[in-house]
Amino acid sequence: MVRWEPGTKERLRAAALELFAAHGFEQTTAAEIAQSVGLTERTFFRHFGDKREVLFDGQADYLQAYTDGVGAAREDASAFEMISSALAAVAERFGEDRRPYSRIRKQIIDANPALAERELHKRSEAAATLAAALHARGVTEPTATLAAESGATAFGIAFTQWVRADETRTMAQIIDDVLAQLRSFAVPG
Amino acid sequence: MVRWEPGTKERLRAAALELFAAHGFEQTTAAEIAQSVGLTERTFFRHFGDKREVLFDGQADYLQAYTDGVGAAREDASAFEMISSALAAVAERFGEDRRPYSRIRKQIIDANPALAERELHKRSEAAATLAAALHARGVTEPTATLAAESGATAFGIAFTQWVRADETRTMAQIIDDVLAQLRSFAVPG
Repeated sequence: MVRWEPGTKERLRAAALELFAAHGFEQTTAAEIAQSVGLTERTFFRHFGDKREVLFDGQADYLQAYTDGVGAAREDASAFEMISSALAAVAERFGEDRRPYSRIRKQIIDANPALAERELHKRSEAAATLAAALHARGVTEPTATLAAESGATAFGIAFTQWVRADETRTMAQIIDDVLAQLRSFAVPG
Repeated sequence: MVRWEPGTKERLRAAALELFAAHGFEQTTAAEIAQSVGLTERTFFRHFGDKREVLFDGQADYLQAYTDGVGAAREDASAFEMISSALAAVAERFGEDRRPYSRIRKQIIDANPALAERELHKRSEAAATLAAALHARGVTEPTATLAAESGATAFGIAFTQWVRADETRTMAQIIDDVLAQLRSFAVPG
């Protein structure tokens, strides 16, 4: 039985972020992360498969939010409304308490091409998840793909704005703004 | 001096496609391709850097068509009209004479994960090229990214439809249809 260790995972995560930011992701070992908060490497590996997982371990929940959000749209919702609902569900995961963490995480990822490639991959995973959820709601092609790709793009743009140093709007506000801009782009000129 | 060899490159390309389709991309060597049309491996490498280039060598021209198409839009064009103009320019590269080749090429690529990954990468290259061309025309963010990503998605959808066995619409017609579907997706419900 693994002992119940309140907050251990989040202590390890905070320590990892600090060391990655200070010394670089490649230069930091799991043992160093653990030692910096008085824990053993073995404890680190009870919580994370590897040090990369510190930065990417919420992926399944993140994708589930897209699926849940599409499912939560009202019965006669348009594809656009399903995407809005999905992005609103995802936005709930990006509250103010998370913004400082997301800013540091972004710096670490931008400094490492392999991590940046992995992060970029999240865009296509989000689009594929959205497309599957839209198909399940009866949205046909090519609307499902157009909507899913637009949703993934909108989230990417919103996230980039949200982590900017001088940005004060909430994620939900930014997403509303980006969706309005998507609409005005596509409206006949 | 390299001798003038009319049609050699296209003979090599046709032979390569046939062998890739029959035996698989990995199982076919440059020497086999050359020999199948009575040429030497050395001649093959005068025309293609490697056998993968047989499938991807038009990439620079393809991306240039996006840039040229955005540049060709009228002075007061909206971002949507610039994307329409870009896709119209790209569509000219996909004439009826090319459709049989594109269909075989797609089968070869779908059968090989590394080639499929490379093909997928063309989507982000198209989006980046479109975004740069839109910036050059004064389109600001986030509209430039929304428009560029929508354009890349629309081309991907159109191409998938164009190579279907039973598809008879021209690429230009399909692109018009997909752009109309993009508009109706984004119109307020």
